[in-house]
Amino acid sequence: MFVSFLSDYGRTDEFVGVCHAVMLDLVPDLRIIDITHDIPPFDVRAGALTLVRAVQYLPDGVVLAIVDPGVGTDRRCIAAEVDGGFLVGPDNGVLAPAVAMLGGPTRVVALENEAYQLPAPGPTFGGRDVMAPAAAYLAGGKPLEEFGPLVDPASLAPGLVPLPREDDDGSIAGEVLWVDRYGNCQLNVAPEQLAERGVEPGGSVRVRVGSEERSARRVHTFAEAKPSELVLLVDSYGMCALALDQRSAAAELKLRAGRAVTIVTEP
Amino acid sequence: MFVSFLSDYGRTDEFVGVCHAVMLDLVPDLRIIDITHDIPPFDVRAGALTLVRAVQYLPDGVVLAIVDPGVGTDRRCIAAEVDGGFLVGPDNGVLAPAVAMLGGPTRVVALENEAYQLPAPGPTFGGRDVMAPAAAYLAGGKPLEEFGPLVDPASLAPGLVPLPREDDDGSIAGEVLWVDRYGNCQLNVAPEQLAERGVEPGGSVRVRVGSEERSARRVHTFAEAKPSELVLLVDSYGMCALALDQRSAAAELKLRAGRAVTIVTEP
Amino acid sequence: MFVSFLSDYGRTDEFVGVCHAVMLDLVPDLRIIDITHDIPPFDVRAGALTLVRAVQYLPDGVVLAIVDPGVGTDRRCIAAEVDGGFLVGPDNGVLAPAVAMLGGPTRVVALENEAYQLPAPGPTFGGRDVMAPAAAYLAGGKPLEEFGPLVDPASLAPGLVPLPREDDDGSIAGEVLWVDRYGNCQLNVAPEQLAERGVEPGGSVRVRVGSEERSARRVHTFAEAKPSELVLLVDSYGMCALALDQRSAAAELKLRAGRAVTIVTEP
Repeated sequence: MFVSFLSDYGRTDEFVGVCHAVMLDLVPDLRIIDITHDIPPFDVRAGALTLVRAVQYLPDGVVLAIVDPGVGTDRRCIAAEVDGGFLVGPDNGVLAPAVAMLGGPTRVVALENEAYQLPAPGPTFGGRDVMAPAAAYLAGGKPLEEFGPLVDPASLAPGLVPLPREDDDGSIAGEVLWVDRYGNCQLNVAPEQLAERGVEPGGSVRVRVGSEERSARRVHTFAEAKPSELVLLVDSYGMCALALDQRSAAAELKLRAGRAVTIVTEP
Repeated sequence: MFVSFLSDYGRTDEFVGVCHAVMLDLVPDLRIIDITHDIPPFDVRAGALTLVRAVQYLPDGVVLAIVDPGVGTDRRCIAAEVDGGFLVGPDNGVLAPAVAMLGGPTRVVALENEAYQLPAPGPTFGGRDVMAPAAAYLAGGKPLEEFGPLVDPASLAPGLVPLPREDDDGSIAGEVLWVDRYGNCQLNVAPEQLAERGVEPGGSVRVRVGSEERSARRVHTFAEAKPSELVLLVDSYGMCALALDQRSAAAELKLRAGRAVTIVTEP
Repeated sequence: MFVSFLSDYGRTDEFVGVCHAVMLDLVPDLRIIDITHDIPPFDVRAGALTLVRAVQYLPDGVVLAIVDPGVGTDRRCIAAEVDGGFLVGPDNGVLAPAVAMLGGPTRVVALENEAYQLPAPGPTFGGRDVMAPAAAYLAGGKPLEEFGPLVDPASLAPGLVPLPREDDDGSIAGEVLWVDRYGNCQLNVAPEQLAERGVEPGGSVRVRVGSEERSARRVHTFAEAKPSELVLLVDSYGMCALALDQRSAAAELKLRAGRAVTIVTEP
């Protein structure tokens, strides 16, 4: 009976607390796990990528993921049934990569039944009034079909996870998926793509960001990096990442999520 | 058996965690909801306004609200009994609007019984040593009258929720109650005040901040705002708010909580 | 069945949420208390000091403390048994002051049994894959000796809590242990050291920071400070602290944790 909750609400306002309160008022036995609430405001892509990293670790139950720049438009709020539970959120792609990783949806409904929504003192606040109640009721055992009409899964907004492009010269035109707290930059590049080009730990690559290029050594762990040495390693999610030893590679290379990074391997 | 907890402690120090620990050590079955802990330091007004927005959504139980610039003075710590539970905090107005919204207190006590307080390694830390234990014990069923002497509700510090002033020319001299994470600016102006002046959705008003004045269109939802267009809408708490489409109206208009905003309606 | 959790993970990434999820997936009845996750990145000393302030308030159970600049090196992850429970973390000193305050360890093991670890999609993420699972399993009742070989407590990394030095002229060469959210600066100076020099509440001392020196009055409470007056008081942990009335002493004196502060008492 877990709800795992991700949003771009931040923690400064009371939004997260009110959603907790709404859910616990409806289903007092609920247990809530806060994945994070510091997704940058309106950043659907960052929300989707964070969720897909986390989802494999979440206990069975309900995922509630709210990054909702379309609040007040006619975008739908949905609940998707997957193996092991449900995902609830706006139909804007924030759920899509996680739903796909969990094997795709068996059923999807639009959250239209007002009997499972809260009355609002003003316009509807989708998180508080529609999606948090749905997550709580689903965790509490209410059947999916009661929440609204079935939706064709093919009609859902797709998730936009960027794929790297392989250039003619063999380089990999990728981008930064995520900069973590320590400044490590996760790329949309898999270690297999480096191995295919003969780059193994101990070897090195050229890293191009804008008009600048520098060398990075392929290593196994952060600890192998010498002071100030840029390294390329496989991070704990299995993706390639750029890092410095106990310093921020993002600050050093002026990288942020979405920034293009080209990996050039020696032929 | 819920305690809903709001403070200005921030999350960087261990204050919030220690208060959780203190409460759970005393009453292990307790469930704690964090409303927010990022009230600006010592800002009693912001704490009171945040609490009064949230309180209608909290489950029955105890509210613990700590914004306490008077720590170490002889200000009282109190527990107020209301319909549905208790509110615990310093007697400086932080609880007052929420207590009023809940129908006023039936009884109030000053938290003076040291049997329900923790011994401190230094001077008393009101949150950790007095108010968190009281919240936990009240949630656990200890009778209110055991915590200390009854206090006359008329002697409590009042809540200072600013009321808008209607100027001779029909304009509304209001102020910003709250700037949320997205930069939306909630005003102390009710939609009825606009309607009385004939301003309905589709119409527009003039918004005066300091010596600058600009137009804002009265709309229903964020999504109706054109790029860069300032709009005035009813927010999800039922109050008027200034907003831009997916951008910060507060940054654009240089607004923050407490800043004066005059709404001028065409006669 | 509590796990009290401290880290330098921040709350922006999903690390904390994933560790919660991992623990609750393994031991669903677990209750988790977040002490704080905003220890500055890699700052073992700050983590150790925060933990030792908090530990006396934590309920019996497991403490999980992760500040781990050595991730990926061969530093050990350990579990230490103490009176009332266990502490889990990297063997780099972050646990040491808390273990000492709790009376020292009765047994310590290195977390080497992979049966109690998660398989990782990339290199091992010590918090998620090793230490969070160990904390959950220990809280769930798994015997300590199953997690790995016993370690000689004498071989553990020591905790580095700085001691003040008494100079020939009777001054106390101390340092800032902690700057809290309000800008109060806790020193590694005990009130007894002032009393030995005849400084009692009402008296005053000279405070030297770098080449600057100013006076501070010894008071009982924050509220005694006049506007702009620097005061020295005993904080709620029983240590000496520098403070201003509702303003940041750290900003005024340009202090941060680790900065040297000399207290000069009149002979």
